[in-house]
Amino acid sequence: MSDSDNCADVDEMKSPDEIFEEYEAKLNDALAEVEEPPEKPGDGIRLGLGDLSLDRRDFMKAGAAVGATTALAGCSGFGGSGGQGTTSSGGHGSVPDHKVAPGEHDEYYGFWSAGHSGEVRVVGVPSMRELMRIPVFNPESARGHGFDDQSKRLLEEGGGYTWGDSHHPNLSETDGEYDGEYLFINDKANGRIARVNLKYFETDAITDVPNVQAIHGCCIQSPDTDYVFGNSEFRTPIPNDGRDVKNPDEYESVFTAMDPESMEVQWQVRVDGNLDILDTDKDGRWAISSAYNDEEGVEVEEMTHDDRDYVKAFDVPKIQKAVDNGNYEEVNGIPVVDGTQDSKLNQGSDPIVRYIPTPKSPHCVEVTPDGKYAMVAGKLSPTVSIIDIEKLDTADDPADTIVGQPKVGLGPLHTTYDDRGHAYTSLFIDSQVAKWDIEKAVEAEKGSTDPVIEKIDVHYNPGHIQATQAMSADPQGDWLVVLNKLSKDRFLPVGPVHPDNDQLIYIGDDAAGMELVADEPVYPEPHDAIMVEADKLDPATVWDESDYEGEKPYISEDESGIERTGEKSVEVNVSVKRSEYGLRDFTVKEGDEVKLTATNIEGSRDILHGLAVPQYDVHLALAPKDTRQATFTADDPGVYWFYCTYFCSALHLEMRSRMIVEPRG
Amino acid sequence: MSDSDNCADVDEMKSPDEIFEEYEAKLNDALAEVEEPPEKPGDGIRLGLGDLSLDRRDFMKAGAAVGATTALAGCSGFGGSGGQGTTSSGGHGSVPDHKVAPGEHDEYYGFWSAGHSGEVRVVGVPSMRELMRIPVFNPESARGHGFDDQSKRLLEEGGGYTWGDSHHPNLSETDGEYDGEYLFINDKANGRIARVNLKYFETDAITDVPNVQAIHGCCIQSPDTDYVFGNSEFRTPIPNDGRDVKNPDEYESVFTAMDPESMEVQWQVRVDGNLDILDTDKDGRWAISSAYNDEEGVEVEEMTHDDRDYVKAFDVPKIQKAVDNGNYEEVNGIPVVDGTQDSKLNQGSDPIVRYIPTPKSPHCVEVTPDGKYAMVAGKLSPTVSIIDIEKLDTADDPADTIVGQPKVGLGPLHTTYDDRGHAYTSLFIDSQVAKWDIEKAVEAEKGSTDPVIEKIDVHYNPGHIQATQAMSADPQGDWLVVLNKLSKDRFLPVGPVHPDNDQLIYIGDDAAGMELVADEPVYPEPHDAIMVEADKLDPATVWDESDYEGEKPYISEDESGIERTGEKSVEVNVSVKRSEYGLRDFTVKEGDEVKLTATNIEGSRDILHGLAVPQYDVHLALAPKDTRQATFTADDPGVYWFYCTYFCSALHLEMRSRMIVEPRG
Repeated sequence: MSDSDNCADVDEMKSPDEIFEEYEAKLNDALAEVEEPPEKPGDGIRLGLGDLSLDRRDFMKAGAAVGATTALAGCSGFGGSGGQGTTSSGGHGSVPDHKVAPGEHDEYYGFWSAGHSGEVRVVGVPSMRELMRIPVFNPESARGHGFDDQSKRLLEEGGGYTWGDSHHPNLSETDGEYDGEYLFINDKANGRIARVNLKYFETDAITDVPNVQAIHGCCIQSPDTDYVFGNSEFRTPIPNDGRDVKNPDEYESVFTAMDPESMEVQWQVRVDGNLDILDTDKDGRWAISSAYNDEEGVEVEEMTHDDRDYVKAFDVPKIQKAVDNGNYEEVNGIPVVDGTQDSKLNQGSDPIVRYIPTPKSPHCVEVTPDGKYAMVAGKLSPTVSIIDIEKLDTADDPADTIVGQPKVGLGPLHTTYDDRGHAYTSLFIDSQVAKWDIEKAVEAEKGSTDPVIEKIDVHYNPGHIQATQAMSADPQGDWLVVLNKLSKDRFLPVGPVHPDNDQLIYIGDDAAGMELVADEPVYPEPHDAIMVEADKLDPATVWDESDYEGEKPYISEDESGIERTGEKSVEVNVSVKRSEYGLRDFTVKEGDEVKLTATNIEGSRDILHGLAVPQYDVHLALAPKDTRQATFTADDPGVYWFYCTYFCSALHLEMRSRMIVEPRG
Repeated sequence: MSDSDNCADVDEMKSPDEIFEEYEAKLNDALAEVEEPPEKPGDGIRLGLGDLSLDRRDFMKAGAAVGATTALAGCSGFGGSGGQGTTSSGGHGSVPDHKVAPGEHDEYYGFWSAGHSGEVRVVGVPSMRELMRIPVFNPESARGHGFDDQSKRLLEEGGGYTWGDSHHPNLSETDGEYDGEYLFINDKANGRIARVNLKYFETDAITDVPNVQAIHGCCIQSPDTDYVFGNSEFRTPIPNDGRDVKNPDEYESVFTAMDPESMEVQWQVRVDGNLDILDTDKDGRWAISSAYNDEEGVEVEEMTHDDRDYVKAFDVPKIQKAVDNGNYEEVNGIPVVDGTQDSKLNQGSDPIVRYIPTPKSPHCVEVTPDGKYAMVAGKLSPTVSIIDIEKLDTADDPADTIVGQPKVGLGPLHTTYDDRGHAYTSLFIDSQVAKWDIEKAVEAEKGSTDPVIEKIDVHYNPGHIQATQAMSADPQGDWLVVLNKLSKDRFLPVGPVHPDNDQLIYIGDDAAGMELVADEPVYPEPHDAIMVEADKLDPATVWDESDYEGEKPYISEDESGIERTGEKSVEVNVSVKRSEYGLRDFTVKEGDEVKLTATNIEGSRDILHGLAVPQYDVHLALAPKDTRQATFTADDPGVYWFYCTYFCSALHLEMRSRMIVEPRG
């Protein structure tokens, strides 16, 4: 495939600088004149944009495109129309009620990443109710994450950061099916990958990955979770210790493979360009990553200068073999294999990484449920490139692996699937979702809009979209969620910080078309979601001692007490049950280090207790049969009533005991 | 009124110890034998409780009562039936759809406290969608609260704690109407009161109140927010500096008055017993607080020994006069007035605090919208005591201010109101809401169940309940929310930590009765909520420079740059707009203190940017036209790509610049 095949609809070939300046001027004019959208919702309301007089949807489109237009100089069709499909909105009668009646359960668990809040959210689908938050990279007091000694240590060993930027949740699989064991998620901010234990819905491991900056793409290897993979998006010197700081030619990004059980990094592969998002095939062979800036520039005009970038397809067994054969350099204790285009391991017919040319700066890779194709959304091109995964092994020219390239609309970012051969692609600039026919797109000419079946307006600027179980081999094809980056005036105003808008679309009736069902405001900033049938998970409702035998003490009522362990140290053990701590009071001396251990001795579901020590910044959250510890120095004399923070019984308010700190004199 | 009037339905008069031991044994038996409730929702499912064989609802009731039963020895009717009203559930046809259609707005803002997560939540009513979180006592990275220098300073000046336990949100009023200016909320954990600015939905003040432990009750003074009041619940030595730690007779709790603008404490009043929750009349005279442990014991049996406790009615103008006259002791810089029963200021016919006997350990005080009555829910008594506020000034015997005492059911905790003369009381032990007629209750004999109109099952163990605008003089009488402490099996299981369950009940049709409309899972642990008509608020969507002129610099694109300010310090200024930071890179030397100032120069609604510095734990969240600063030490040489955390445009991923930290050599 030639470059020109990848670059349809170029109106004129201005230089990036020219385009950039021109659109920057337009943006500034628009921003100077724009009035706020009216408070009342509804589309097509005119804004006072002076002579431009764009309607709101067009204004959103213009705003979203600003900046992108630099890059569009070389490629894609900004300003042109998107696909030729019909635009649908509302009014169908075939949609099942998405509201789950009081006391009824949702059909799916959804796991949402939460961006710079650092957490994972559990959402019931289709009701879209947030069932739980799982603090991951963020210390959080309600669950005591980062407050008890155990989770403090977890965060400390994970790099000691106080926040993270979680993007891509992934569920562990066995035989290609979700097995309900683990969720893995990346931290873009600090280059980490964490694991959530789905028995307890609790973070149990955080790995600070060496040699990377900004882990962005993150996925598990289908079908058996043999690896967890992560992409470092930002190119830096490796190691990044002060060498080559002003020599960008030496910057590199790496692809990382971790063991899902030990959560230790097994090996890394360094490549050309910036890695972005990745997915794997369904056979344990290929990990396929989008990438941009194969120019290896450091400024945006350089990064988007050329017409194409290269998707990287990592041949995992071959890389493993290279590692086994010692074909690597060890950096910070990690075997780093050379996967750049010039690497000797990539010469000849048997490369460890295939470089597949696509229109410049694509965004996402999502593999179809049947494992046949990997879809690469164009971002700056209005197309999706369809990679035939089988051809990764057979095509002599990597460009020949691209077997289709439908034109879906402006700003395509992400693609998801139903169980009937359709793909759904989010259009960031158009603020739409395009539904298209996969096999028709393979058969059609590249750049054709014929495969597009239908489009639906969303509000506004969608990023990830996901349909139920679409990341597995068993998509359900009923509900689709669209994670919109902007909500603008869709909700009551809540100050300058706006919620995002997750929209629920019913896709189960091809004849009736897509139907927008609900808007859900969400705290900044979900990036991605994954949905699994509820019966795939089997969470515990009470802590199981056998899971931590030997690791945590268990304090019974009889064992409650205080023991002096040194001149300036004491150990305090407290059992906890409804209305009562096992100790009515304990006395320490000013300056003592207090090691406080508390066990919730109740085994009844949903009977939680807390142990808060006022003015000592101590909070333990104790689920049934759980033990937590807090170590602190009692440096302020006085009486401190430690109390229960989970409202647990009619005498909850009276549930407290005294820590007495005597002056040392 | 005699004590016996306050204590109906006592079956037998066992000693507290006897009762406590008996019920503890029963609890332990039950806990040992209880099986988990089945996963499927639905009431009336049998649990394997051995010989007890309680159905689930009865089991919930027994569990909730454990601990309470000690206290019930002296008073109340545990084991007896609640009110005689009918029990309704479901099936009415007159309820408006609570789901707000995509793009439509909610009718009310709800502000929810969030317990030991430390935040405030903004909820749309009736859709029950969470519109926004407002971090208050908790550092939170998505909004940068506690991450930029400004909010770090706010938290530091507020005591330097890393969490809080927020309970009671209060909206500022002018002429008895919500004025949309401020929300005030307490931190029980560390004895603080914070203010949220409702132009920006952002915390703008936190006061660490001296001489208190565990501020629990918190309210504003109606009708004009002249004061914000707070109750310290835990009795300690004052000052709590190591003196009298083992002499509980010297422990005291205090009532605090703050100025809502300066957020400085004006004066305090020390009283007998533990203060709990409070409300004010509508005329700026009385602040009325529930209280328990007038025994002044330190263990639960002592605290609940006597049959009655005393509600405290603070005569605010008289206290102010005492302060003006110098009738106080200064402790930690605060004028502390003696409001104990023995105080000379409380002798004679003109006391500063009236002590009103109620059944022991009542929980909440809520004043009716017309300002006529204060309802004191019994908690351990099945009654609500109705205080006639006018009589606070005229009754010779404080007991005569109680003009009614309907028997509403087991475990009454909180009361709210419609606009048609009804009260709604949550029944923690019964897991119900009782609707009753206020004037009928005043006319009826004390202990009568006749005023109870109707009860509805809730799920499970409700605490606060609130109807729309019921805390103001203008209740709406349409929607009621019930904040249930336990959800048990109402939602998909999410591990041992369960969500609470906020239930929405329609109360607008007296003929049809109360109707349960929705279950909403919520992250631990809301305690209280307040709802206001949407048009009462007028939030900004963009920061207004005039609000912080002189306090924050504004960095334009031209002003972006770096300046060395010392041998080991630099100042870096960066403008921020879609796709672009005002600096493409900046270079510092290892060990430099970097003062980074960033301004989002965009004025368009919902266009936010972030500035994250990988591996330096720095995150700034920048709403339109906002400026934030972060100061940190660049102690690790290398290349650090600072990047935007709010997905802002099609070239968002490319929006980043380099901080280069050169080795000092």
